[in-house]
Amino acid sequence: MQELSFLALWLTGGAAEASRLPLALLLVFGTAKLLAELFERLGQPGIVGEILAGVILGPSLLGWIAPNELLKTLADLGVMFLLFRVGLEVKPSELMKLGGTATVVAMAGVMVPFAFGWLILAAWGAPRIEAFFLGAAMVATSIGITAQVLAAKGLLRQRSSQIILAAAVIDDVLGLLVLALVSSMARGSVNLLEIGMTALVAVLFVVFIAKWGTRAVGRVVPRMQASLRVAEGEFSLALILLFALSLAAIWIGIAAIVGAFLAGMALAEGVGQRVRDLSHGATELLVPFFLAGIGLHVDLRAFQTPSIISLAVVVLVAAVVSKFIGCGLAAWPLGRADAIRIGVGMVPRGEVGMVVAQIGLALGVIPQSVYSVVVLMAVATTLIAPPLLKLAYRGIESAEAAEDGLRLG
Amino acid sequence: MQELSFLALWLTGGAAEASRLPLALLLVFGTAKLLAELFERLGQPGIVGEILAGVILGPSLLGWIAPNELLKTLADLGVMFLLFRVGLEVKPSELMKLGGTATVVAMAGVMVPFAFGWLILAAWGAPRIEAFFLGAAMVATSIGITAQVLAAKGLLRQRSSQIILAAAVIDDVLGLLVLALVSSMARGSVNLLEIGMTALVAVLFVVFIAKWGTRAVGRVVPRMQASLRVAEGEFSLALILLFALSLAAIWIGIAAIVGAFLAGMALAEGVGQRVRDLSHGATELLVPFFLAGIGLHVDLRAFQTPSIISLAVVVLVAAVVSKFIGCGLAAWPLGRADAIRIGVGMVPRGEVGMVVAQIGLALGVIPQSVYSVVVLMAVATTLIAPPLLKLAYRGIESAEAAEDGLRLG
Repeated sequence: MQELSFLALWLTGGAAEASRLPLALLLVFGTAKLLAELFERLGQPGIVGEILAGVILGPSLLGWIAPNELLKTLADLGVMFLLFRVGLEVKPSELMKLGGTATVVAMAGVMVPFAFGWLILAAWGAPRIEAFFLGAAMVATSIGITAQVLAAKGLLRQRSSQIILAAAVIDDVLGLLVLALVSSMARGSVNLLEIGMTALVAVLFVVFIAKWGTRAVGRVVPRMQASLRVAEGEFSLALILLFALSLAAIWIGIAAIVGAFLAGMALAEGVGQRVRDLSHGATELLVPFFLAGIGLHVDLRAFQTPSIISLAVVVLVAAVVSKFIGCGLAAWPLGRADAIRIGVGMVPRGEVGMVVAQIGLALGVIPQSVYSVVVLMAVATTLIAPPLLKLAYRGIESAEAAEDGLRLG
Repeated sequence: MQELSFLALWLTGGAAEASRLPLALLLVFGTAKLLAELFERLGQPGIVGEILAGVILGPSLLGWIAPNELLKTLADLGVMFLLFRVGLEVKPSELMKLGGTATVVAMAGVMVPFAFGWLILAAWGAPRIEAFFLGAAMVATSIGITAQVLAAKGLLRQRSSQIILAAAVIDDVLGLLVLALVSSMARGSVNLLEIGMTALVAVLFVVFIAKWGTRAVGRVVPRMQASLRVAEGEFSLALILLFALSLAAIWIGIAAIVGAFLAGMALAEGVGQRVRDLSHGATELLVPFFLAGIGLHVDLRAFQTPSIISLAVVVLVAAVVSKFIGCGLAAWPLGRADAIRIGVGMVPRGEVGMVVAQIGLALGVIPQSVYSVVVLMAVATTLIAPPLLKLAYRGIESAEAAEDGLRLG
């Protein structure tokens, strides 16, 4: 029997290892698209179905798939391409005009949620630093979810959409600073000089790329591309810029996706339809892994005592209300309709809040229960925002989409 | 200093982890495309530059990048998309007509290299089973390299190209059987019944998909697509078929890329240009990781004694000559020009030979030195084939490419 068992072992053993990738691809992509189709048929945004695919496949329900490096690679690539693709549709000149309003929206959207989070845990009787961490976890908007919804509906060129995008980028920088501040408080003392330096470098990077990077790229890429011999050279150049700016963003201390967005924006006025189509192919392949990956992180089994369930409900409500009020009020001068759109568009927290909670857990300043609450809040806000966005943009949707047929997702 | 060092640690530590993906993307993709451009300017195929990028970045020279799971994921996805994309350009009806010739080419291309590999190590005085393993490692053609060259030059519709593709698929099944045979010999005895069953299932799978799968897909996909609400539904359906057939191929015991090729071929007559463009985007992003990944595996530091260098040279020459003669003679009835093209097109061994050598090493029947020689042979044949293919197809190239503008890579 030895030879038989060896062959069987070789085939199944080899197959088990070799089948990991296609099995993960089929399960995650297939389930995500199946649920997206189902949600679209129910009149809901498909993106909600794709996130729920992760919740269903993950530890909460079926337990078929745990977050692993393979899926993380695809998810990280997915959100990079998503923001790159969104950047490609944004004209930096238009975005810069809205910079003032966006900054006010971003700042209000940081301060109000931070205050809410802090006050909730303070009222709960938690230590001050724990309350600060919950506040920090409620600060940063996840630009990916809103961008995907707006892109899918062809709404990226709306004024409110552009303000959301710009505010979310500024928000990311502010969120980093809040995190650096509470992290150093957790360690005992605060070095304001270093935090200030980080802030300065991050702001300079974003402004430099948005303002001068665009012009440089607009001049260099067409010239380089004309002399390239390699096939699809323009697309290759665009990808190299995407990877380089993502890396630079991380080195500077902000999220890779901000670099990806800036790379797209820098190329927005310089590249042709071919680069957009090819990027779109990569985006369509990879984004479901980002969306399902968000859902995979939640573990509903953590919510079993009334105490943690009520904390989760309070935090979730506060997360939605605080962003909506903070950003909505800041955008009030633009009129009620746009203020509501901007308020809703800034609601999703996604992976940024999770990272803050992970650091708090690693530093030992927040307990496992608060960590679970933050993850649930992050996932639930990403699930709540798309249907609200759909409502807030009702009416406009069909007009612009019909007008230029611009549909990304 | 504690707070400063913490912040620095958090920033650099967090950045080091977070920057792994964009750093790997930038280094591998950027170097691959830079060298591809260089080689194109030197009048050589860009693919050679992309493989060399892996050799340069890998342990042989710079040692900046070692094969890791992140790169393996992208490389495995890359070769799946490459074969899918190639399948999309192949009409199954045309391919089936050439099935007879392709089978003869594949069989000769298995037997002659196996005999050469066996005889070399037998003459070297190695044990019989070691000689069999070298023979087995020299058997399977790597369809990816040749397909990429032919696709890049717009030559996939040539009769010789179609025979190469079909023969390489058959070759993969035959290579599996040879491997199963020598593996079970290494374990002491051979179960011909089980090997025969595996062969039968594999052949039935390939024939079934190529013959009836195409028709089924051709009817089902357009109908399903028309009723889909989700954006880019046709592309999503195509990807689900790609992942499902790749998985099925592995479960049946053949390579995932054969499933990917069959998925492409099944869709070739049913899907529109949009699916081709979107697949092309994913392919352009991912294929450089497959090509550079091949180069990453070679470690030139293993070749230091005259004995191993001379063995490597003999094996490499035998690998090229045996495939060229075996397949070339089998294709002789098609005329000298096509026989030469087919002989050259079947030369690259790539990752399949490496897998055989890994199993031999794991079973303890081949020493480390022979393993290194096989890996060098696999990488060197992929480097030698593209310039030879370019020569063999000289003259035709411009005609077809100009005629229909079909350029994939």
